[in-house]
Amino acid sequence: MSLLNTALLIQDTAELAASIKDDMGMLWMLISGILVFFMQAGFFLVESGMTDSKNAVNIAMKNFLDVAVGSLAFWFIGYSLMYGSDMGGGFFHWGGFVFSQGAADLFFQTVFAATAATIVSGAIAGRTKYTTYAIFSIIMTALIYPIAGGWEWNGGWLNAEWMPAEFIDFAGSSIVHSVGGWAALVAAWMVGPRIGKFLNGKPVEMHGHNQMYATLGVFILWLGWFGFNGGSQLAWGGDDSAAASQVVLVTNLAAAAGALSALLFTWIKNGKPNLGMTLNGSLAGLVSITAGCGNMSESGAVLAGLIGGILVVLSIGFIEKTLKIDDAVGAISVHGVAGAWGTLVIGLWGVDGDTGIGLFNGGGVAQLASQAIGVLAYAVWAIVMSYIFLTILKVTCGGLRVTEAEEIAGLDISEHGTIAYPGKRQREME
Amino acid sequence: MSLLNTALLIQDTAELAASIKDDMGMLWMLISGILVFFMQAGFFLVESGMTDSKNAVNIAMKNFLDVAVGSLAFWFIGYSLMYGSDMGGGFFHWGGFVFSQGAADLFFQTVFAATAATIVSGAIAGRTKYTTYAIFSIIMTALIYPIAGGWEWNGGWLNAEWMPAEFIDFAGSSIVHSVGGWAALVAAWMVGPRIGKFLNGKPVEMHGHNQMYATLGVFILWLGWFGFNGGSQLAWGGDDSAAASQVVLVTNLAAAAGALSALLFTWIKNGKPNLGMTLNGSLAGLVSITAGCGNMSESGAVLAGLIGGILVVLSIGFIEKTLKIDDAVGAISVHGVAGAWGTLVIGLWGVDGDTGIGLFNGGGVAQLASQAIGVLAYAVWAIVMSYIFLTILKVTCGGLRVTEAEEIAGLDISEHGTIAYPGKRQREME
Amino acid sequence: MSLLNTALLIQDTAELAASIKDDMGMLWMLISGILVFFMQAGFFLVESGMTDSKNAVNIAMKNFLDVAVGSLAFWFIGYSLMYGSDMGGGFFHWGGFVFSQGAADLFFQTVFAATAATIVSGAIAGRTKYTTYAIFSIIMTALIYPIAGGWEWNGGWLNAEWMPAEFIDFAGSSIVHSVGGWAALVAAWMVGPRIGKFLNGKPVEMHGHNQMYATLGVFILWLGWFGFNGGSQLAWGGDDSAAASQVVLVTNLAAAAGALSALLFTWIKNGKPNLGMTLNGSLAGLVSITAGCGNMSESGAVLAGLIGGILVVLSIGFIEKTLKIDDAVGAISVHGVAGAWGTLVIGLWGVDGDTGIGLFNGGGVAQLASQAIGVLAYAVWAIVMSYIFLTILKVTCGGLRVTEAEEIAGLDISEHGTIAYPGKRQREME
Repeated sequence: MSLLNTALLIQDTAELAASIKDDMGMLWMLISGILVFFMQAGFFLVESGMTDSKNAVNIAMKNFLDVAVGSLAFWFIGYSLMYGSDMGGGFFHWGGFVFSQGAADLFFQTVFAATAATIVSGAIAGRTKYTTYAIFSIIMTALIYPIAGGWEWNGGWLNAEWMPAEFIDFAGSSIVHSVGGWAALVAAWMVGPRIGKFLNGKPVEMHGHNQMYATLGVFILWLGWFGFNGGSQLAWGGDDSAAASQVVLVTNLAAAAGALSALLFTWIKNGKPNLGMTLNGSLAGLVSITAGCGNMSESGAVLAGLIGGILVVLSIGFIEKTLKIDDAVGAISVHGVAGAWGTLVIGLWGVDGDTGIGLFNGGGVAQLASQAIGVLAYAVWAIVMSYIFLTILKVTCGGLRVTEAEEIAGLDISEHGTIAYPGKRQREME
Repeated sequence: MSLLNTALLIQDTAELAASIKDDMGMLWMLISGILVFFMQAGFFLVESGMTDSKNAVNIAMKNFLDVAVGSLAFWFIGYSLMYGSDMGGGFFHWGGFVFSQGAADLFFQTVFAATAATIVSGAIAGRTKYTTYAIFSIIMTALIYPIAGGWEWNGGWLNAEWMPAEFIDFAGSSIVHSVGGWAALVAAWMVGPRIGKFLNGKPVEMHGHNQMYATLGVFILWLGWFGFNGGSQLAWGGDDSAAASQVVLVTNLAAAAGALSALLFTWIKNGKPNLGMTLNGSLAGLVSITAGCGNMSESGAVLAGLIGGILVVLSIGFIEKTLKIDDAVGAISVHGVAGAWGTLVIGLWGVDGDTGIGLFNGGGVAQLASQAIGVLAYAVWAIVMSYIFLTILKVTCGGLRVTEAEEIAGLDISEHGTIAYPGKRQREME
Repeated sequence: MSLLNTALLIQDTAELAASIKDDMGMLWMLISGILVFFMQAGFFLVESGMTDSKNAVNIAMKNFLDVAVGSLAFWFIGYSLMYGSDMGGGFFHWGGFVFSQGAADLFFQTVFAATAATIVSGAIAGRTKYTTYAIFSIIMTALIYPIAGGWEWNGGWLNAEWMPAEFIDFAGSSIVHSVGGWAALVAAWMVGPRIGKFLNGKPVEMHGHNQMYATLGVFILWLGWFGFNGGSQLAWGGDDSAAASQVVLVTNLAAAAGALSALLFTWIKNGKPNLGMTLNGSLAGLVSITAGCGNMSESGAVLAGLIGGILVVLSIGFIEKTLKIDDAVGAISVHGVAGAWGTLVIGLWGVDGDTGIGLFNGGGVAQLASQAIGVLAYAVWAIVMSYIFLTILKVTCGGLRVTEAEEIAGLDISEHGTIAYPGKRQREME
């Protein structure tokens, strides 16, 4: 055996190790992406279950649109705006149409993109024109979300040296959830409340039509979140295997904590444990750990989730009673508020390996300042952009919402000419 | 260190690489198979949601039978007929009872086999005897499907040298979906339409009972399809990782395109975007890319899906209005027609790596000719075999369908002595 | 190239192989754990579908509690009691609070733990106080299940040398399912039957409210079981890949066999094939192979499942008619009885590689004796512990069940102040 061969062999072994790590990383990202895709079914069930049956088909059609148009728009333009080359100061990126850095990554990022649009649909359920929503969904997936995503995940300005510390948003508490949540806030405010939601300025509870759907939907979302957070490791093998596993573990702990605190909080507050709030509590727990799942101890994740679960209950009351905004499913609180909380909490008790980087564990204020800058930046971006585009849509489409008669009849009939449960209605009419 | 040890080491490294590739391939196939298994739940929800509630239990029982009997029949005899040794001309194969080439592959192929039978159940919902269906399900999974599958996936006659080009059906647009779809065509024609489906020769719309189930079902099918197509790479590691990821990516793009084109087409045609057709459009998009997901550019996949989504809308109308055949869920169009389209499109703009193999991208007519031969062969096989076996069943079982009284009462009561929603009916009777 | 480098290289290759095997093992366990998590959605759908709609929210709240409290309790104390150091004779184990042996394993074991508690909730649906259940759920996940699990899976006393043979329970027919099932037996007996379940000592059939949910739930459970059994290989790579694939294959075969035998058995017995029993038959098939999925030939698995499917039908009748115990969903039979059967069958025709270890395939009685000892030990443990803790709860909480008025109104109203389908009821009241 010659020295040459042996030298080649060494190279082979190192290359083999790197290549296998790539293979395993792609496998994990692909499986995670498949799980995240399934979250659309979860959103569909939660949103339709928590609202009236006369708008259920409309919600199905919105979710299908999010996936369909979202997948195409993000493939054609969005991925490029997010992961292309820096066009100046880490604010805009571009890589040409149909830009790609590999199928597994493109697929994984696509299913993320569809999520941000979907968050909006829940808040404005029951009164928004399908056309309006359709166009706004394209704008969210193709412009608002990817441009903002590039700031952080493409090494944009939130990672710049002048920042107090490097901004951390591992899987998108801010980038996906808050952006979606603040856009939902603007949309719900501009569209206005459903007919009958406020009586003499006081909010009236408008029941959903199927709490079983909502429950199944939350289980599916919780399931998909393991891919959402875990897959955001973007790699597998060596340290990445343990890190991604830890991400999944703390994701589950925070979700459990959020469910539990919302359950107990409503039990103490109202005398009975409330299902709807428990569901939203678990989602809030998940959102609360989405930014920090790679930078949080297990106890820290539990605490973040516990607080997230209570925050969501308080926030839903505040938005409804004080702001008098009608958020049909609590999306602003679950995604916007808990998303901001999940981003900030890294600055309170986050860790980097064994080192505390938060205010309360010896890390000083640098990380908290950066997290606050990021939270603010994403809020301003989402609110301003949503306001601009929704205003344009309002003017050009003759208003954002359907007529009073259409709303009372239900969007299923007025927008789609059908009903969710045809047999039952038919039989009732016979 | 001796030369011998170094030589052994070299062998070890090469063996290690090969063994790890096998391990990763098995992992991907197993996970894909698990996803494909879940498609049975999707079929169940789509079929029961799109039909009357009085037949919903019957559909559940058919789907359970497909999995249960299908798993056992394919294990005992089907896999052998598909992947055994060539018994002559690449037409029949046999490897003995309980033949296997490894558990991961056997499991993956088993869950595929159960799909073909399930396709038939949707088309003939609401009037077919359970006994008849049960026996036909066994015949599909144990005979019709596996024999036909061997023609292509076991290197059978469709890969013979005398073919203009090697026939391509990566994941089964023809082998699974068209075979199921054409069998459904024969079955729906022989069983005849549901009572009340045609009034003076004109089709009457018979509403399903729960569009939420149908929507959830399509999300589950779309999810499972990532395993159906992606797992058909049958390997992971090195080039296979990127190839399988690309398969998943184009599968999602085609499904999105199919949903979008059906949505827009019905919107333009009828004035309102239709949920049922959007659901079928996404399924048609998925079927349209199933053959070509390894031989299609991303744009090519989008175009294939766009056309598939429109084709399915036109085909459903044609089968109902012109052929006057009652396909309760559109299965013939979704699986048969889109399956043929998905097979043919490879001959139009398919690629082999960077080389065009289609008529429109410089590949000439050879591939198109081979694809047409395959489409035709599978259609003839499925139609002739279904006709023979259903005729035998018709004669020996005293007809394929239940009595008029049983049909009007619903198959749930007449065939299973129960109803899908007992509480409601009970309360109504009280 | 120096000898030193070459020697280092050899070490690298061996280390690489081991490290990759660990990586793949973690990946498989994590994915399996995610599948097992999803089983909670399956349990929720099966239990709510098979019972009255007036208790559906309560079941959702119980399942959420199982996951939420279960995840936290098992993380804090349960895992330590199961996988900590031997505290004496392999009966008790302890590793300190928040003990862990790695995130992937902890996550996988956590989702297992939540299952045992959930089994109990189905049996006692419709009349148990939420507070009582909540506390008992914590006790199950944090004490009863993990202590018992350590006996076998932490190399406890069931693997001691004085046993006739090493007790085998690969994925928990006894450890998870029988423990849950026997606890459910005690709980259902102590709580007593639902009002109206027995009329003059004869059982009255109390219909569920949605067989579609039950069907979807069983599909989800079957899906999750591939992770439950397959992931219990706890490794991937080399022989483990083939072994885990084989586990998934035989799991599917046993489930299919259980569904088929229950379907045929009720068909012959009652004249019509019964959906509820077919669903329970498939679950019984799954439980029947859970202990032996690593020690059973394919034919052996089919036979175990076939018998499991019939056993569950007979057992449901026996518990209801002879014992006069009201098990709302058949949980005692599906998990307790089939769990015992699945454990014992290894002693009848189990294999260790190619060697028969059962009574009927040349292995003598040693294995059967050990399996019987295990079955008995887990039954005694679950029954005694459940009885003690439920008695304490009964005394301290003023009874285990709600008042007669609350039960008739439904637990959703009385315990949670809501109903599962608010829209419908609202409309009825208008």
